[in-house]
Amino acid sequence: MSKVTLEEFNRVTREQLPIIEVLGFLPERLDESQCVVRAVYQEDFLRPGGSVSGPIMMALADYAMWGAIMHRAERVQMALTSNLNINFLVRPEPGDIVAVARVIKLGKRLAFGTVELFGNQQNDLVAHVNCTYSLPPPDNT
Amino acid sequence: MSKVTLEEFNRVTREQLPIIEVLGFLPERLDESQCVVRAVYQEDFLRPGGSVSGPIMMALADYAMWGAIMHRAERVQMALTSNLNINFLVRPEPGDIVAVARVIKLGKRLAFGTVELFGNQQNDLVAHVNCTYSLPPPDNT
Amino acid sequence: MSKVTLEEFNRVTREQLPIIEVLGFLPERLDESQCVVRAVYQEDFLRPGGSVSGPIMMALADYAMWGAIMHRAERVQMALTSNLNINFLVRPEPGDIVAVARVIKLGKRLAFGTVELFGNQQNDLVAHVNCTYSLPPPDNT
Amino acid sequence: MSKVTLEEFNRVTREQLPIIEVLGFLPERLDESQCVVRAVYQEDFLRPGGSVSGPIMMALADYAMWGAIMHRAERVQMALTSNLNINFLVRPEPGDIVAVARVIKLGKRLAFGTVELFGNQQNDLVAHVNCTYSLPPPDNT
Repeated sequence: MSKVTLEEFNRVTREQLPIIEVLGFLPERLDESQCVVRAVYQEDFLRPGGSVSGPIMMALADYAMWGAIMHRAERVQMALTSNLNINFLVRPEPGDIVAVARVIKLGKRLAFGTVELFGNQQNDLVAHVNCTYSLPPPDNT
Repeated sequence: MSKVTLEEFNRVTREQLPIIEVLGFLPERLDESQCVVRAVYQEDFLRPGGSVSGPIMMALADYAMWGAIMHRAERVQMALTSNLNINFLVRPEPGDIVAVARVIKLGKRLAFGTVELFGNQQNDLVAHVNCTYSLPPPDNT
Repeated sequence: MSKVTLEEFNRVTREQLPIIEVLGFLPERLDESQCVVRAVYQEDFLRPGGSVSGPIMMALADYAMWGAIMHRAERVQMALTSNLNINFLVRPEPGDIVAVARVIKLGKRLAFGTVELFGNQQNDLVAHVNCTYSLPPPDNT
Repeated sequence: MSKVTLEEFNRVTREQLPIIEVLGFLPERLDESQCVVRAVYQEDFLRPGGSVSGPIMMALADYAMWGAIMHRAERVQMALTSNLNINFLVRPEPGDIVAVARVIKLGKRLAFGTVELFGNQQNDLVAHVNCTYSLPPPDNT
């Protein structure tokens, strides 16, 4: 099978991952080295203190890594997060958040990668994520 | 200051954490030992394969722990997640997810706790979460 | 195959895991619900400030979980840690550290569990660990 | 105070962190961007299956990050690991392991960094570590 393109990633998302539409996340780039997704700012994303809330950042990171793995591992929509570890470094000011996900190791059963989250307004690293995805057997993609 | 009650937790959520309203999470219990929050099932929560998506579970866990800490540490709305580690154990069937958050250690600067997520239909542990919150200085609550 | 007993756990350790002998860890209990291992205090374990160092605690947790999984999953010496997440809660005073490891979920390919580490002198929870082990295929134990 | 040099890092280790001497870890480089430490291979490091055991890798990562923080944050021997998350990617063949630790964010109270562990013989990334250190107040270094 061929690799998932940005266009297909968008289509699969629309058809099968409605929460991402609710949140309005926007895939911007998908290639061999990375998957870049933008969380376009909404007031609903704010938490007390006026920064973007953690759940938005976690959802964005998980989604971006899913795209990166679907590209690298070829259409494995059934890839499932088994572990996600996030460190919140800076409170992001109101504004877009951009996730850059990279697959570090692609094994037969597990894929491991990191995601960096940047606050749009200051181009700062606001959070760092490690995650592991469990891959389905080859005949189950 | 007195401890946050279930009613106040609901009010703060409505006023200051709009994403939780979008997701329709429902706090059910808040006492010294735990904070219980229910994610009432929506079709929008599903992911490919027909199970509840990871971002919903992460948002629920983070929110439940925030409630647990606000109760124990007295109104610290400014408590900020610094680290969250989630292990997904079983794919949750369509249905409610219930989070049970417990504060394990409440220090001066950091609070640490665990959250168990249960699938409603089978009463199974579907995910296990550890998280650390950074607490603001006492005059900044 | 039958389950690993405390005696066999000790034997496998002596024969195949020399670092544990160097550190002098002592398995105390191994049954369906838990694996308990004691780190008998040595001056070499101390770090600046006079508390027991992190690497000792991480080694103890990993080893105790390995025992718990070998008991539950039947002699899988080839179980390999894939992820370990430790939160250090209290600096342990000089003295023994006791690890209590529990398997939370035993799947076909992955086992997930938690380890609590207690400081002996005060019976306090000093660290909390989550870990995931990758299990070998059945014909490879 | 001035920054910790490689020589001072070695001296502090000898005087105050005996477990590192037992394990024979060798700091090789310490500068603004990274701390590099080598675990010189010993047969005692092996685990069943003939690869280097997890506790050795965790100890190496934690120690390398401690060096990186002591350099960047100026002599804070009392920096304490609060969270360490390790993903084991490849079983390292018998041979040296080299850790490269980098501080990603240095705050007032917390420092966050990543450590990459490489197997010497194949120059492969064998494990990836995230860790957070708690920093003491300025008058307590």
